[in-house]
Amino acid sequence: MTRVLITTAPFADKNKLPLELLSAAGIDYLINPHNKKLTTDQLAELIPGFDAMIAGTEEINAHVLSKADKLKFISRVGIGLDSVDLLKAREKNIKVSYTADAPAPAVAELAVGLMLSLLRSTQLSNMHMHQGNWHRYFGRRLSEVTVGIIGAGRIGSRVIKHLSGFKPVKILVNEPKPSVELQKIKGLEWVSKEELYKTADVISLHLPLTSVTRNMIRKEDLLSMKQDVLIINTSRGGIINETDLFEVMESGHLGGAAIDVFQQEPYNGPLQKIERCILTAHMGSMSVDCRTQMEIEATEEAIRFLKNEPLLGEVPQSEYEVQEQK
Amino acid sequence: MTRVLITTAPFADKNKLPLELLSAAGIDYLINPHNKKLTTDQLAELIPGFDAMIAGTEEINAHVLSKADKLKFISRVGIGLDSVDLLKAREKNIKVSYTADAPAPAVAELAVGLMLSLLRSTQLSNMHMHQGNWHRYFGRRLSEVTVGIIGAGRIGSRVIKHLSGFKPVKILVNEPKPSVELQKIKGLEWVSKEELYKTADVISLHLPLTSVTRNMIRKEDLLSMKQDVLIINTSRGGIINETDLFEVMESGHLGGAAIDVFQQEPYNGPLQKIERCILTAHMGSMSVDCRTQMEIEATEEAIRFLKNEPLLGEVPQSEYEVQEQK
Repeated sequence: MTRVLITTAPFADKNKLPLELLSAAGIDYLINPHNKKLTTDQLAELIPGFDAMIAGTEEINAHVLSKADKLKFISRVGIGLDSVDLLKAREKNIKVSYTADAPAPAVAELAVGLMLSLLRSTQLSNMHMHQGNWHRYFGRRLSEVTVGIIGAGRIGSRVIKHLSGFKPVKILVNEPKPSVELQKIKGLEWVSKEELYKTADVISLHLPLTSVTRNMIRKEDLLSMKQDVLIINTSRGGIINETDLFEVMESGHLGGAAIDVFQQEPYNGPLQKIERCILTAHMGSMSVDCRTQMEIEATEEAIRFLKNEPLLGEVPQSEYEVQEQK
Repeated sequence: MTRVLITTAPFADKNKLPLELLSAAGIDYLINPHNKKLTTDQLAELIPGFDAMIAGTEEINAHVLSKADKLKFISRVGIGLDSVDLLKAREKNIKVSYTADAPAPAVAELAVGLMLSLLRSTQLSNMHMHQGNWHRYFGRRLSEVTVGIIGAGRIGSRVIKHLSGFKPVKILVNEPKPSVELQKIKGLEWVSKEELYKTADVISLHLPLTSVTRNMIRKEDLLSMKQDVLIINTSRGGIINETDLFEVMESGHLGGAAIDVFQQEPYNGPLQKIERCILTAHMGSMSVDCRTQMEIEATEEAIRFLKNEPLLGEVPQSEYEVQEQK
């Protein structure tokens, strides 16, 4: 009997269909017994004997893959591939698929919500009010600021659409390969990262984590931004250097930040001490509809693989090339 | 020399122009020495000797007005008039103006931001993350829910425009006198309050506080709403009965609430115990641009009155009629 290891957590929490699909296909499965993001040691211990994985963002590195004695397929619930050693997987003849489109709507809405929270300090007021402290914070409106979007692919372009209902003063975009659709939107200004850092009031990141984007935003970049800039990162931890972010914020630079993704998750670190830094638990894709869609897509893809049917979400060659450039 | 009492707090905090305008006009002024919302006793003690008031949301009732020996003009920074005894003011030949349009953009953005925070539990995740607890909350997206807007005047109609960038499944509107512009927007459904309570996933209030709207939403109304409904009140405290809201939430009904306005402000009460109730400190109008605009408009109006120039923001007859209906 073929066996599938489901590592992403939670799984099938709001909708049991993925598990029903596996059972109907006669596939045996094990759900992550730790119910949180696995360490490489935990995963290396679990993985022997499984034919396929339905994976989250846990690291699937060479060490893990060396223990994967039967593994032939990884189906990523989500989009980022920074956690998967694609080259080693290819070497071992393990195919990889992902659900590239499914998380985008949920991540984009989260990013806009975090912008509005930062602009008005609602999360600060909420924390203080629950402790009995009344203070009326001054804020700014989306309609009177310049928003900078770094990375305007599936998610960034949706953020831009959501912003249309608010009419920011300017939307600056840094994107080397804008889609045709995006190029048609009026009023966007295409700028370099450096110009965006200097002039934006609100900066939102929508990039994959690669060897190029890792530590892309360091102390000198943060210090080149406006004193009261607001930064939102719902993409991947590590794109902003976390230590630098903490030190710069502690020094009083940056008006605020909203960080949903961390170098190591679950996060436990010094940003917890910074009140004007909103922290959320990698919840970008966590709307019931998107999460369900991702889980069903990833499960169906695993079933297709195990039944020798054509795959629909196989990771394109370009993702392997990104890792070859390391 | 004419003297103006400025009661609203903060005042001229981000922009000194209002004070400069008063000085240039040769008008003496006193800024609220308590630097927070005045009680009626504090205000009654302060008010003798002043010719005009630049007022916040503090109560200006018959008792206060009985001590106002020289007062001839009240210039409200903001829009709500529930705090002013208009009939008693008229009886004493005290004119009243307000800045009806200025707060709307800031309140509308706050309301949408609170919707997005509630939908994704970002404020809960933020509180827990700052305490070192990692939990990935499930949420919903604006694009997959039905939003109900009660009151679609200056503010509610702006909320509807902001929502256009998200395309909710449905927007239900309860508004007895929709503007011509609003009636042209496609896809809105005009419904009774009762129907809205029953069918909306997210409900946002944009109403004045009057004898009709006071306690408009009581326990039975809250219980007629969906179990997981999210309610946002950025209009006035007292429209939702606060005790009922607390009891209903404590019993487990309602998915969440975001309350910016309270029966008594500063707020200190049992809603502080409800984690899924976002509390903010009456910050609807607190964007720098709107607040500055309101303060300048209210100050210019007071100067016009004291110089016997025509007023631009005098409260219309309809507002007096609302109070006559009490």
